[in-house]
Amino acid sequence: MPDSGGGALQAEILSIGTELLLGEIVDTNAQYVSSRLRDIGVNVYRRVTVGDNPERLLSAFQDSIGRSDIVIATGGLGPTDDDVTARCLASALGRGLCFDEDAWNSMRQSYLRRGRTLDEGSLSARKQAFIVEGGFFIPNPVGTAPGQGIMVDGKLILLLPGPPSEMRPMFENHAIPLITKSFSSLTPIYCVNLNIVGLGESQVAEALADLLGGSNPTVAPYADSGQVRLRIAAQSADKNEALSRISGVEKEVRRRLGHHVYGKNEETLEMAIGRLLARRGLTLAVAESVTGGLICHRITGVPGSSKYFKMGMVAYHPEVKISTLGLPPGVVHREGSVNEEVASGMAESVRLLAGATLGLATTGFAGPDGGTCNEPVGAVYMGLSHKKAGTITEKAIFSGSRDRIKVFAAQRALYLLYHFLIEPGKNRG
Amino acid sequence: MPDSGGGALQAEILSIGTELLLGEIVDTNAQYVSSRLRDIGVNVYRRVTVGDNPERLLSAFQDSIGRSDIVIATGGLGPTDDDVTARCLASALGRGLCFDEDAWNSMRQSYLRRGRTLDEGSLSARKQAFIVEGGFFIPNPVGTAPGQGIMVDGKLILLLPGPPSEMRPMFENHAIPLITKSFSSLTPIYCVNLNIVGLGESQVAEALADLLGGSNPTVAPYADSGQVRLRIAAQSADKNEALSRISGVEKEVRRRLGHHVYGKNEETLEMAIGRLLARRGLTLAVAESVTGGLICHRITGVPGSSKYFKMGMVAYHPEVKISTLGLPPGVVHREGSVNEEVASGMAESVRLLAGATLGLATTGFAGPDGGTCNEPVGAVYMGLSHKKAGTITEKAIFSGSRDRIKVFAAQRALYLLYHFLIEPGKNRG
Repeated sequence: MPDSGGGALQAEILSIGTELLLGEIVDTNAQYVSSRLRDIGVNVYRRVTVGDNPERLLSAFQDSIGRSDIVIATGGLGPTDDDVTARCLASALGRGLCFDEDAWNSMRQSYLRRGRTLDEGSLSARKQAFIVEGGFFIPNPVGTAPGQGIMVDGKLILLLPGPPSEMRPMFENHAIPLITKSFSSLTPIYCVNLNIVGLGESQVAEALADLLGGSNPTVAPYADSGQVRLRIAAQSADKNEALSRISGVEKEVRRRLGHHVYGKNEETLEMAIGRLLARRGLTLAVAESVTGGLICHRITGVPGSSKYFKMGMVAYHPEVKISTLGLPPGVVHREGSVNEEVASGMAESVRLLAGATLGLATTGFAGPDGGTCNEPVGAVYMGLSHKKAGTITEKAIFSGSRDRIKVFAAQRALYLLYHFLIEPGKNRG
Repeated sequence: MPDSGGGALQAEILSIGTELLLGEIVDTNAQYVSSRLRDIGVNVYRRVTVGDNPERLLSAFQDSIGRSDIVIATGGLGPTDDDVTARCLASALGRGLCFDEDAWNSMRQSYLRRGRTLDEGSLSARKQAFIVEGGFFIPNPVGTAPGQGIMVDGKLILLLPGPPSEMRPMFENHAIPLITKSFSSLTPIYCVNLNIVGLGESQVAEALADLLGGSNPTVAPYADSGQVRLRIAAQSADKNEALSRISGVEKEVRRRLGHHVYGKNEETLEMAIGRLLARRGLTLAVAESVTGGLICHRITGVPGSSKYFKMGMVAYHPEVKISTLGLPPGVVHREGSVNEEVASGMAESVRLLAGATLGLATTGFAGPDGGTCNEPVGAVYMGLSHKKAGTITEKAIFSGSRDRIKVFAAQRALYLLYHFLIEPGKNRG
């Protein structure tokens, strides 16, 4: 199982590039390779990032090769002097570099595809066609720098270019087949993520305490902007067996957490809401103050949302709450428009204005300024109005930056709506 | 300069969490910490990622502490059993863990801020208040898990929580002051980012070709969601000298690129727009279709935006464009509401409805479905209406995912507004 030690294959990922250490780019390659290795049953135990510095790169190669069965390195395969990856791998293995005609031909073809001609005498270009003695080259279908690999003492080492648009297809088309061919003992890991709303990480951990101790599948919760993700992962050579182990745990989690599990894997809360609205033929209108458009942005991010989302109103200015939504001035001017009646009035008005079945509203103080004696920055009222069921409101207090308060308030308002759609007859728990 | 070896301070970053090795999240903390350490003149030589595995984490701590002057670790400070960071650091140093009353008090306060009560007897909560012997705690202003640090044999080791919204303020307010106080030999790097809109990365590179070759300051452009960021960085023990080198280059860049440079460092396009609106006493209303609330979300993300932003309307459904914005049905039903007249009509109507000086509007197809024979997915019309200057429109075609089309369309619409505010008399170039 992941990161549990034992006799499983060990892989390390080496990300190479001074631009990474300077913080100029985020290392998405490491995440991508990690996730794809996990899919095929290879456990990643460590990732290391070093710059284009020969001494430190050499020592990183030595350490990683010493510790693991598979090393995937990305970056540093370009034509310039500071691209030293192939040279350092050769040193780490005590081997030389050889000019590879096949690699050179593939570079020639890459140039032709782009309507350019490879300068046959260019030393910096030729440098990219040098392969570690005993290794093999890996064609690059997108850019010009070839990758390469070598199998030494039962260990597989692959060098791939740094740009994700080049690395990814090479990883899919060459690295994955090479790994599965070279290591017949691989046991794939299958994984499901359940997305949970309305419970904190510790509440989830408490409710599932006995399941979190399991080893196959493993079950682990982690917090993610106002929600919790629960990963259930099982490892088995038999796909059906793994999936059935996962599904057993998934059923038990759903039984315990009920409607709090709103979706699976990539499904967002707004997708779950969209699915519920569409299934019942309901329509939605939204009036936002403190969340300032974020709820509408999330709802309209879902393909097909135009079928159920009728309109949104960002009623930011108090005057607009009065003139467009028709709220009573006395209510709007109380506590800087942050009160229960404003939230319920906005929800009801926008629903009527749009001719929708449901109206959702938020009002509050996102900060950093604002707030009153009774209602501090971070105080948020949410309202939900339904044609027949009437209007409910909820209050919450969030902390942190303006952006964080918007994000958490939008999430909580969407949860209010989701909860209503799941159990329209009951009040919130 | 960074990564050149020699006698400079060496720092390593340790990212801790099995979810990283499984590729479930991208490690943005490592990038953030790298970039901020660079800013204060600390060279990061290596980054290591390990899972929540005590044995490997212990060895990673030993290696990193052995090699470097500063170790920044993020993650693994939560309440659950797999959060083992503090325990592993204690083992690596051969020390114990002590319950820290100050840390516990700060946790109590965090709970109170969120309107919750800390369970005084909870072992899992108390675990978070244990500090490595001889160390100190670092308060967490956003979440509940305190950070901690220790100075041992002239080496500074800091443990910070994994969620970026908690880690970042703690890094800014505590880690940076601690590092600069502890290491007086730092040669700081000063850095200015200029934010550029309306020009592509290659156009910027061409206009500044001669400046990009410099070494102190270095000048480097990079593309970022419909805009370009240009980093100008100088290193010097003398702050004034570094700043004056930067300011010389900045002046020249601004002379060449003119109003395309809309802001500096963290200033976003919506902040620049807010500044221009506020300075002139203008007010804004927005009507969004294809961008679905994203423009309002960006505008309202700016502190103080309630002073100039009057209202937003997400007129998603064709009926709403007719009923609420009063557009003629014939215009709305032509080309699925994606045409120039809809864009200009929406901009004018929302301006009148809100009683604002300016109205900004978008309509288009975000996909993946939709589009007509004449207007494909990605086609976007933008409209801008001014009380006196009348209405202008612009068309653009974007490609990629639904999300990308929304992001690029919102950026272009904001640029239309920005450009008008800079040069209200002229048409777009």
